[in-house]
Amino acid sequence: MTLGGFLSLRQSCPSFAAPIDSRNAPAAAAASSSNPRALRFRHKFFPRATYLRAPRRAMDPPRCLGSSDLEEATDDIPAASTVHRAVPSDLVEKMMYDALVWSALHGLVVGDRRVQKSGTVPGVGLVHAPFALLPMSFPRAYWRQACELAPIFNELVDRVSLDGKFLQDSLSRTKKVDAFTSRLLDIHSKMLEINKTEDIRLGLHRSDYMLDAETNLLLQIELNTISSSFPGLSCLVSELHRNLLNQYGKDLRLDSRRVPGNTAVSRFADALAKAWNEYNNSSAVVMVVVQSEERNMYDQHWLCAVLKEMYGVATIRKTLSEIDTQGHVLPDGSLVVDGQTIAVIYFRAGYSPNDYPSEAEWRARFLMEKSFAIKCPSISYHLVGTKKIQQELAKPNVLERFLDNEDIAKVRKCFAGLWSLDDPDAVKSAIEKPDLFVLKPQREGGGNNIYGDNVRETLIRLQQQGTEELAAYIMMQRIFPTASLAFLVREGVWHLDNAISELGIYGAYLRNKDKVIMNDQCGYLMRTKVSSSNEGGVAAGFALIPSTAAEKLILILMRRVDLKTKC
Amino acid sequence: MTLGGFLSLRQSCPSFAAPIDSRNAPAAAAASSSNPRALRFRHKFFPRATYLRAPRRAMDPPRCLGSSDLEEATDDIPAASTVHRAVPSDLVEKMMYDALVWSALHGLVVGDRRVQKSGTVPGVGLVHAPFALLPMSFPRAYWRQACELAPIFNELVDRVSLDGKFLQDSLSRTKKVDAFTSRLLDIHSKMLEINKTEDIRLGLHRSDYMLDAETNLLLQIELNTISSSFPGLSCLVSELHRNLLNQYGKDLRLDSRRVPGNTAVSRFADALAKAWNEYNNSSAVVMVVVQSEERNMYDQHWLCAVLKEMYGVATIRKTLSEIDTQGHVLPDGSLVVDGQTIAVIYFRAGYSPNDYPSEAEWRARFLMEKSFAIKCPSISYHLVGTKKIQQELAKPNVLERFLDNEDIAKVRKCFAGLWSLDDPDAVKSAIEKPDLFVLKPQREGGGNNIYGDNVRETLIRLQQQGTEELAAYIMMQRIFPTASLAFLVREGVWHLDNAISELGIYGAYLRNKDKVIMNDQCGYLMRTKVSSSNEGGVAAGFALIPSTAAEKLILILMRRVDLKTKC
Repeated sequence: MTLGGFLSLRQSCPSFAAPIDSRNAPAAAAASSSNPRALRFRHKFFPRATYLRAPRRAMDPPRCLGSSDLEEATDDIPAASTVHRAVPSDLVEKMMYDALVWSALHGLVVGDRRVQKSGTVPGVGLVHAPFALLPMSFPRAYWRQACELAPIFNELVDRVSLDGKFLQDSLSRTKKVDAFTSRLLDIHSKMLEINKTEDIRLGLHRSDYMLDAETNLLLQIELNTISSSFPGLSCLVSELHRNLLNQYGKDLRLDSRRVPGNTAVSRFADALAKAWNEYNNSSAVVMVVVQSEERNMYDQHWLCAVLKEMYGVATIRKTLSEIDTQGHVLPDGSLVVDGQTIAVIYFRAGYSPNDYPSEAEWRARFLMEKSFAIKCPSISYHLVGTKKIQQELAKPNVLERFLDNEDIAKVRKCFAGLWSLDDPDAVKSAIEKPDLFVLKPQREGGGNNIYGDNVRETLIRLQQQGTEELAAYIMMQRIFPTASLAFLVREGVWHLDNAISELGIYGAYLRNKDKVIMNDQCGYLMRTKVSSSNEGGVAAGFALIPSTAAEKLILILMRRVDLKTKC
Repeated sequence: MTLGGFLSLRQSCPSFAAPIDSRNAPAAAAASSSNPRALRFRHKFFPRATYLRAPRRAMDPPRCLGSSDLEEATDDIPAASTVHRAVPSDLVEKMMYDALVWSALHGLVVGDRRVQKSGTVPGVGLVHAPFALLPMSFPRAYWRQACELAPIFNELVDRVSLDGKFLQDSLSRTKKVDAFTSRLLDIHSKMLEINKTEDIRLGLHRSDYMLDAETNLLLQIELNTISSSFPGLSCLVSELHRNLLNQYGKDLRLDSRRVPGNTAVSRFADALAKAWNEYNNSSAVVMVVVQSEERNMYDQHWLCAVLKEMYGVATIRKTLSEIDTQGHVLPDGSLVVDGQTIAVIYFRAGYSPNDYPSEAEWRARFLMEKSFAIKCPSISYHLVGTKKIQQELAKPNVLERFLDNEDIAKVRKCFAGLWSLDDPDAVKSAIEKPDLFVLKPQREGGGNNIYGDNVRETLIRLQQQGTEELAAYIMMQRIFPTASLAFLVREGVWHLDNAISELGIYGAYLRNKDKVIMNDQCGYLMRTKVSSSNEGGVAAGFALIPSTAAEKLILILMRRVDLKTKC
C-alpha cells in the first residue's frame, strides 16, 4: 500500500484516524451501524481529543494459545462475544477444569517460570500453557486467503534468499546501526565470497496476520523464517477446543467440526524428515539448536517426538555454545557435533542478540553455515525474515523481481503500509498522525514497538540525531483488529477480557537443486492477547474499555467484519 | 502358613533368621552359592550380633512407579543388577532426559508438593511421577500365579462380604480399639438391620505381592478393596519403559517385548462402564469421591478420561463434605448429588480416618451406603479389605467357608504367616525373634508398621496394657524380598540404589444378582522403593549396604530366586 493510498483510505474512514474510546463510543456505534461502505468514504476525522491514549507498553504481553472457529457469513452463528457473555460462570469453571485436566494429560504444558529448573530439566515445574478457553471466530474467506498465501511466501523467501546482492544492499544501512543484523550479514558475505551453495533448502516459516477491522483486509504482521514456534502446542489447543466443544458445544451453539484440523506438528515433522531423507545418511540426526533455558521446550519436544515416532528420525538438542565446543566440520563438509553427523540443523535459538552472549555463539553459527548440513534456516533465509526486508519487499516494483503477476497481487493485498524512515513524506505524516503508525525496531525480541505519541517523539528525536539512527527502524501502518470477549486461562485461573487474535499460518518449503519436494501450508497458530496490549504492531482502539457500552461496540465492529465484502 | 510351619522353615534357613549385613556378607555369599535346596534344611542361626539393625522408619517412603520385565529362567537374560551396573552414566542421563520428556508429553505426572495449589487445581504445579528408569525383572511363573489369583480374590471378597456376621464377629475386638473401623462397622450394622441388598456389586481391587527370596514364594502383602490407586499411571509407566527399550534396549540387552502390556486403566474403565450400564439410567453419572487435596489426581483423571473417551460415561468429582451438603437420596433410593443422579460411586477417598475430620463426612458415607447407587466399594467390600480380615482368612478352616478346595490351595500358597496378638505362641515367638515379624496396626495410611526390636518392645508394652490393645494390631511374617539395583528418578534427578519391588495385580468384579458380568485380572502395578525403607511390611536384609560386596551378594540372591523350582 502506498503512503498516499493508505492516508486517503484512513482519512475517508473516521475510526481509522480516531481509535475509539468510551467517550465517543455512542457516536462510533451509531456511525458503524450505518452502511459500512458509505462509512469508508464519507466521514471526516474525529477531533484529536477523542484519540485513545497510547495504551501501556507491555514488555511481556499476556498471550494465550487459541484455535479458530471458522465462521461463514450466516446469521445462525452467534458472534463470539454473544457466546461469551451468555456463558454462566459455573459453566466456565467446569469447562476450565476439564481443559486444565486435558492439558495436563495431553502435554499442553510449558515450564513454570516460578519453579526452579523448569526451563532446563524436562518433567519438572510444569504448568498448562496459557490458552483461550474457546476458539476465536475467524471468517473462512480470510482463512483461505492466508492458507493460499503460504506457498507463495515460501517461494518468495527462497527466491529472495538467492539474491545475495539484494539482501546486502537492502540491509546495508540497517547494518550500520544494528550490530546483530551486521553479524548476520558478515556471515552472509563470507558465504557469498566462498560461493557457498545450498543445494537442499528447507524453510519452516510462519506468516502472522491480523484482520484489520477498518480496511477489512487480512494484513501481514510479520513473516517468521527462523524458529517459528508453537507447531506442537497449537495442534494440542485445536484438539482441546474440539474436545471441549464435543462436550459443551451444544450449550454454547458452537460446533466442534468448525474448528479446523491443525496439521502443524505432523507437517513440520514431515518436512524435517523429508529434508533428512534428502541428506541421505541414515546414521545422521536432526540437531535442534536451543537456548540454554527454554520454558517452551515441550512445543519443541512434541515436534521431535512426532519426528521420531512417525519417521524414525532422531534429534539431538544443543545450545550454540555447545555446538562451538563439540562441533567441527569434516573435510567433506559434514557437520559433526558431539560425535554425530548432522543432517538438518533446526534453529529454535539464534534469532535474538541475547542468544549470542560471546564470540563462541557466533563461531558456532558460522561453523554451521559453512557446513553442508541442511540449515533451517540458512543465513539467507534468516535475513529474508528481517523487518527491513519485509519493508523493502513492500516498495513498488520490488516483488516484481521475484514473483509473477498473479502472486504479486495476492501478496500485495496482505501487505500493510510499510515505510523506511528515510521516506520524508511518511515521517512527516507519522509526526502529524502518530496514532496511525507503529515504529518497529529491526531488533528482534518483542516488546520494542513504539505507538501513539511516542511515535512522534521518537521520530523527532531520531531526526535530530541524524539519518543513521533512522535506519534502525521501519514504520508500519497501525492495524486495528476487532477485539472480542474471550475467556483467557493462565496458571489455573480464568478471566474474561477483550482480546484480539493473530493468525499464523505455517508453511514448509523443501527444495533439492531444482526439484521442489514440498511447498505447502502446514496448519495454523491462533494467538489471543488482551487488547490492552500493543505488542505485535497492533492496537485495539477500545482496549481499555471494560464497560457494557464497549461490549456493544465490539459487537458492532464484529458485524462490520462480517460484512466485509460489501465494504 | 501355621506358626509352627513358619518357624520351622525359618529355623532351617539361616538368612531368614539373620538378615544379612556387610559383616557377614562373605559368609552369606559363600553359603548361598552352594546348593540352595540344601541351604534350606541344613544351616543353623547366625549369631544375634550379625542381625541387621532395624532400618530407619520412613513415614513417607520414597516409592517409584515401575513396570515389569518378565524373565524366563534362561541364561541369556542378564540379571537386573548386571544391566544396571553396566550402564554408563551418560547413557543413564540420556535415557532419563527422554523419559522425563515422555512423562511431560504423555501425562505421567503428579502434583508437586512444593507448589501451591498443585493438589487442588489441575494443570498447575505438575511434576513427573517418580519412576524407575528401567523395568524390574520378575519371574514369569510368579507373574502368572499372581494373575491367576486375581479372579479368585475377586470372588473371595464378594463371598466374604455376604457373610455379615463373619465380618462383625471378626472385627468385634478391633472395633473396641479402633474408632475408624468401629464407624465403618456401625454403618455395616445398620445396613444389616435394614436388610439392605446390593444387587449390583462392583469391586476394583488390587492385590499386592512380594517375592520372598527366602521361601521363594509369592506372598501377599495386602488386598486393597478400596481406592486401588495407579491404574492410570501404571499403564503409562509400562508404555514409557517399552518406549525407552525400543530406543535403548539393544545396548542394554533388554527387549521391549518382554514388558507386558498393561490394561489397568482400560479394564477398570470397562468395569465402571459396565456397572454404569447395569444401573441403566443414561443420564446418570459416575461420582469419584475425592480428597479435597490430591496430588495423585492425574491417575484418577486418566481413568475418567478413558471412561469418557471409550464409553461416553461422564464423571463428577466430589469430596465427602460436598456429598454431605449437595447430596440426598430420593424415595426410590436414587442418590442425587449436585442435581445429578449417581449410577456408580467410585471411592478414591474415604479409606483413611483423615478423610473423616467431622460428622459431615460420616453422614455422607452413610447417605451413599443406604442409597441404591452402585458402591465401589460397598461398606462390606471395604471391610473385607481390612488387615484383620486378611488375618482371619489365614486361620485354619476359614477359607473353606468361602472357596472350593482348588482355589483354597492357590490362595493359601500366597498367604504369609498372619497371626492375631491373642495367639500367645505367636506373641512369644515374636518377642524371642522380633526380626522375623512385622506388627501392623489396623489403622490405614502407611508408615505405621513396626519392625525389629520395636516389635519386641511393643508386644511387651501391649501385654502390660491388657488384652484390648492387642486387638489393634495383627502380626505378619516378615518378608525378605530380593533387592536389586535400580535407577530411581524423582524430581528430575536419578540415583542408583538397591530397590525392592512390589507387584500389584488389579482385579475387577461385577455381578448383578446372580449374573457375574466381569471377573478378571486387569493389569498390574509394579512399585519400587529403596530397600532401606521398611514400609509395606517388608525389609531387605542388606538394605544399608552400598558396597560392591553387597552388590555381589544381591546378584547371588537373585540367582537363588531364579533357581526357585529347585528349592
